[in-house]
Amino acid sequence: MVEWILAFDFGGTKLSAALVAADSVKAAFMSTSPFTAVPPPWQAIRRVFSPPGADGTSDLATMIALGRELLAQATPAGEHLAAIGVSFGGPADATQGLVRLSHHVPGWEATPLQALLEAEFGVPVRLDNDANTAALGEYHLGAGQGHEHLFYVTVSTGVGGGWLLHGRIWRGVEGMAGEIGHTVADPHGPLCLCGKQGCVERLASGLNLAADYQAAHPHVGRITGQDVAQRAAQGDPLAQSLLQRSAWAIGVGLGQAANLINPHLFILGGGITKAGPDWWATVRQTARTIALPQITVNIVPAALGDDAPLWGAVMLVLTTITL
Amino acid sequence: MVEWILAFDFGGTKLSAALVAADSVKAAFMSTSPFTAVPPPWQAIRRVFSPPGADGTSDLATMIALGRELLAQATPAGEHLAAIGVSFGGPADATQGLVRLSHHVPGWEATPLQALLEAEFGVPVRLDNDANTAALGEYHLGAGQGHEHLFYVTVSTGVGGGWLLHGRIWRGVEGMAGEIGHTVADPHGPLCLCGKQGCVERLASGLNLAADYQAAHPHVGRITGQDVAQRAAQGDPLAQSLLQRSAWAIGVGLGQAANLINPHLFILGGGITKAGPDWWATVRQTARTIALPQITVNIVPAALGDDAPLWGAVMLVLTTITL
Repeated sequence: MVEWILAFDFGGTKLSAALVAADSVKAAFMSTSPFTAVPPPWQAIRRVFSPPGADGTSDLATMIALGRELLAQATPAGEHLAAIGVSFGGPADATQGLVRLSHHVPGWEATPLQALLEAEFGVPVRLDNDANTAALGEYHLGAGQGHEHLFYVTVSTGVGGGWLLHGRIWRGVEGMAGEIGHTVADPHGPLCLCGKQGCVERLASGLNLAADYQAAHPHVGRITGQDVAQRAAQGDPLAQSLLQRSAWAIGVGLGQAANLINPHLFILGGGITKAGPDWWATVRQTARTIALPQITVNIVPAALGDDAPLWGAVMLVLTTITL
Repeated sequence: MVEWILAFDFGGTKLSAALVAADSVKAAFMSTSPFTAVPPPWQAIRRVFSPPGADGTSDLATMIALGRELLAQATPAGEHLAAIGVSFGGPADATQGLVRLSHHVPGWEATPLQALLEAEFGVPVRLDNDANTAALGEYHLGAGQGHEHLFYVTVSTGVGGGWLLHGRIWRGVEGMAGEIGHTVADPHGPLCLCGKQGCVERLASGLNLAADYQAAHPHVGRITGQDVAQRAAQGDPLAQSLLQRSAWAIGVGLGQAANLINPHLFILGGGITKAGPDWWATVRQTARTIALPQITVNIVPAALGDDAPLWGAVMLVLTTITL
């Protein structure tokens, strides 16, 4: 009998879902094979994308409908759903199974998503924020394999991070650990939304890169952080200098984290990490300067790309529920 | 039969040793009593202080002689030494039992202190640096009781830190975790010995406070960080401004650590923490500003004072060796 795991990745701009045969993932998980070499059932995962929702209520209805649709397609008689894992793109309280809020979609405030999905599907549900699930996904199936103490950092619209210590998610006592985006890189830097000056997120994130570029060139209209990266690649000096500052700030944050925790590995994901070799060189060089010489600082790109949180949601189930 | 634990605290300017009846500490450790209320045998600990050594070789001989002297005094026939714990004031590799070096005393480079003491006394030895042992001591017997995720920071000649996660010392993969002294608080700040600018240690430590005071007032001659604190208390504006900067830098470091790890508690020890309420108010206020609003930041003074590393060395034995 096949037991299935349903996984959701609720982001700021998309909802992804996958239905995975638990045994195939367990086989991949137990093997020492890299992710690219796992047996065929793993690749039989079903995935669906939907456009972003209007608010939490309709998004929840979409999640449920999507899950039901995948189950109807994939589970013949005798097979059944065993558990659900959720990666949420925003502050979440994993121990209570609560979404605190979405920074991008209204209506998610204090939503008991775990209990709602458990009531709907009648199976155990596990939930965490996307940085933590991505860290877990990269550890078991991606760039973090074999490195049980690692820090995953996403440099995207915002900047967030998730710790794995001893191969387990480290959430801190209030579920707030990993907030590298609000490490102050430069106390004399520009004002961050959080009220401080020169936070890593203020200097490094896609949203801020775009805003700073537009402030200098109001005529360009609405652009994204990735547009700034593209302009930098084409030789635009302002775009290049903003990306250099972004990389410097990320490097400062990683170097400070290395001094405090001395992990095996830093894994970077998110759109801005695709900005090219100059960005990476500055990140690595800055982190190397900030970290003490006795500390090895390994910084690598995420291997699972945008799928890291979704695979992490699967692993969240497999590492906490005995199927 | 009484089993004894011999503990050493090798600092930059003194060597302390204690001989402790293991059962009395175990009783204190198992009870929920605060440190001040442990049963009388705990208070029967023997202690000796010696002047600082000239180099590693003669210091080691002094340690051994001191241990033998305590044993001769305290152990009648039928009682025996069970284990030794060592707190070392400098970089140490706890997993290998090696002292890397002392910043204050020459001759300790790459010394296999654990093996040397095991050969000499014929009992198991455990060894760690003083920030880690102090964290362990404060957790079991001092201000950290009941808070299994904590960060101990010493603000003394230098600035160092030791993590306890799940009630166990977190050393990082290369034993370098906790280096809050080399968190950059101000990238435009003065040059630190490590080569970076504006490190917490450069702005906050006793040695640097004294050096900065002397640079402005060359006529004062040789003073210490505690002298600067005393002058501040007497209303000296330069001393006050240096202490404010010290407190600001410590607050920045603690706030960043709170964002990254979100522990239960920060415990501060060392001479500069005795500078008075203004210093503490600035530390707390700055850390509160740097940490995100959702994060609780508890900062308290060490309860064991200068004895924290010595008691921590005892606990290092009791938490890793079954007696």
